[in-house]
Amino acid sequence: MPHTSPSHPGRPDDLVAFAAQALGRVQNESPLVQCLTNAVVTGFTANVVLAVGAAPAMVDIPDEAGPFARVASGVLVNLGTPRAEQRAAMPEAARAAAEAGTPWVLDPVAIGALPVRTALAADLLALRPTVIRGNASEIIALAGAGGGGRGVDASHGVGDAEDAAAQLARTAGSVVAVSGPVDYVTDGTRSARIANGDALLTRVTGGGCALGAVMAAFAAVDEDRFATTVAATSAYTVAAESAARTAAGPGSFAVGFLDALAALTPEDLAKRAEVS
Amino acid sequence: MPHTSPSHPGRPDDLVAFAAQALGRVQNESPLVQCLTNAVVTGFTANVVLAVGAAPAMVDIPDEAGPFARVASGVLVNLGTPRAEQRAAMPEAARAAAEAGTPWVLDPVAIGALPVRTALAADLLALRPTVIRGNASEIIALAGAGGGGRGVDASHGVGDAEDAAAQLARTAGSVVAVSGPVDYVTDGTRSARIANGDALLTRVTGGGCALGAVMAAFAAVDEDRFATTVAATSAYTVAAESAARTAAGPGSFAVGFLDALAALTPEDLAKRAEVS
Amino acid sequence: MPHTSPSHPGRPDDLVAFAAQALGRVQNESPLVQCLTNAVVTGFTANVVLAVGAAPAMVDIPDEAGPFARVASGVLVNLGTPRAEQRAAMPEAARAAAEAGTPWVLDPVAIGALPVRTALAADLLALRPTVIRGNASEIIALAGAGGGGRGVDASHGVGDAEDAAAQLARTAGSVVAVSGPVDYVTDGTRSARIANGDALLTRVTGGGCALGAVMAAFAAVDEDRFATTVAATSAYTVAAESAARTAAGPGSFAVGFLDALAALTPEDLAKRAEVS
Repeated sequence: MPHTSPSHPGRPDDLVAFAAQALGRVQNESPLVQCLTNAVVTGFTANVVLAVGAAPAMVDIPDEAGPFARVASGVLVNLGTPRAEQRAAMPEAARAAAEAGTPWVLDPVAIGALPVRTALAADLLALRPTVIRGNASEIIALAGAGGGGRGVDASHGVGDAEDAAAQLARTAGSVVAVSGPVDYVTDGTRSARIANGDALLTRVTGGGCALGAVMAAFAAVDEDRFATTVAATSAYTVAAESAARTAAGPGSFAVGFLDALAALTPEDLAKRAEVS
Repeated sequence: MPHTSPSHPGRPDDLVAFAAQALGRVQNESPLVQCLTNAVVTGFTANVVLAVGAAPAMVDIPDEAGPFARVASGVLVNLGTPRAEQRAAMPEAARAAAEAGTPWVLDPVAIGALPVRTALAADLLALRPTVIRGNASEIIALAGAGGGGRGVDASHGVGDAEDAAAQLARTAGSVVAVSGPVDYVTDGTRSARIANGDALLTRVTGGGCALGAVMAAFAAVDEDRFATTVAATSAYTVAAESAARTAAGPGSFAVGFLDALAALTPEDLAKRAEVS
Repeated sequence: MPHTSPSHPGRPDDLVAFAAQALGRVQNESPLVQCLTNAVVTGFTANVVLAVGAAPAMVDIPDEAGPFARVASGVLVNLGTPRAEQRAAMPEAARAAAEAGTPWVLDPVAIGALPVRTALAADLLALRPTVIRGNASEIIALAGAGGGGRGVDASHGVGDAEDAAAQLARTAGSVVAVSGPVDYVTDGTRSARIANGDALLTRVTGGGCALGAVMAAFAAVDEDRFATTVAATSAYTVAAESAARTAAGPGSFAVGFLDALAALTPEDLAKRAEVS
């Protein structure tokens, strides 16, 4: 991994130092995160955004989504339950975000096999998301969709998706994050792995989706979206480790995760982030 | 209650043994449960499905709901907040499930007095749900709707609904489950009562609705849907008893319920289920 | 503040005594609260309504919202995520509530800058809500909208909104409640400040929105909606103080808040409410 300037960190230690600073900025600046997200996770996502120190706003209807994206600090577009009004509002928000220079995150939930969202994801991809977040199968499917529409195989691991992620990052001009036991982030040139986290995150609905909103919050505080995406991932997964220590199951884990995220300090993050 | 073969248990002891085995199968096989459910309870329902060991997918828009129902292990159709897109997606999913042999559960929330969902419930009933779950008033209303459209009286108890449930089971070819202090399940021939549970379940929104999703998960692991519905009900209500022991109120009960459901073992269930 | 008859309390001590009685009535009568509210907070709102002792029903589609508002005890109309179907259902519910004498609460979330909801709020204001609840900026924007459409400035404090609130109360014939560190309630003649609460309420999504549903529940038990709105606010914020004592962060606070609200007695409320 090439060593880059401090403002474009590439070495693990630099990325961790950057992550700690970025968390401090999110907590101090409280970026306004517009979420166009799925019906299952809206409440949890908003609570995660609040816990990390940012301000959520679920503005997701046509004629409001675009104007709001111009004033938001960051935007999340998550395709989990894409009703007709959201399908109209999402490109409106993405276009406005692009024009205004607002960073926006695309989470192509379950694309590949499902036709409506797969077509929508292809349209949104053409609008060049700042960050793309998904599991291995979704990233592989999206990389294929850009080149001609391959299917999705839910059995893919993160390692299987690294090439697709790098290719997608270069084609779309996006930072691409692949979630899994070890998360992988790449901008097509630089890449990093984040080894924090806990399997309980996969037992809470929205455990992945809410991370997309946190990536939008971090993308608001620095222009280096590779580094902010690594920072968001490490803050999120370090908090998950804290919560897992005392959890008696997925219910108490979700509660403790919000507490841990709200209590996380830049110093803790600097000590505990496992970036390689 | 007639004694039937082990593959069609009817005696309480057989039903309890079956329930324990079915829970083990849900935990091992992690059936994919498609939920077309109401806006209030989506998050809680998904977390309950995850806690019991299954995998939730909230695919509820037209042109996706049908194709997904063909590959899902079980489907829940809950009429709590039936927006126009859901009203189109629900029959699409039910038809596809029926054609593919996917079991599906109908939860006719608050039908009787409310016109849009009452008409929708009649249409769905004609598609012959695998399982129908409701409170006494809803089951009485649905049994009436099949025969000509009676109103709903929210003051009905489970006992008042037993005849209507048995008649509905025979007419629709469904297993019918009536929720209450003691739950009642019948397929029109066999019947069972499950005495587990806690009143705190009625103080958490989705306490009844999420049980429908658990019934869909259990229906995926065995063809005997009378027995799987008894099993789902007993697993769910035994976990509620565990959570009630340490809860300080409805907030901590909901958290502890998810923990208890995730920790429930087949052995615990075999010991604690009160089926008669 | 003028001393009024016991049935129209205006003095702080009278308002507190009234609040305790009103809480007892909500717990005993379990009013049916219809909520047309935003997608982010539906689950939390329903759980709050249950915790305070009332019964929630999220009936928010056209052709059902109106008929249900005629039989509901109180109605909440919250503009947080106003999809097209809700925009049709909201005036339907408000008109039916007005005709039936059902009290209804308007929460004009984020109006001012966002065009769709701002127009909708103006239409709903013309239907004369029983109670209007918002933060300072929303109340100022709504007062302006009644007179010609001013913008919103999110930096307003409660004190800045007191004149606008009193004017809005007189123009619309509504009780107006402004949420903040100290809540302010006025009917244009009487006014009160409630000093209970905790900043953690602002770190939980729905912390403000769910209060609107509680105001609808309390409005159902007495004709004096100035006093019931003060009562709802004090019960809600006293419970928040209880929860804050043991919370480790926003996750455990939200859980403890539901427990505390469910455990709150009229006697506790009478002792702890800080009304001036």
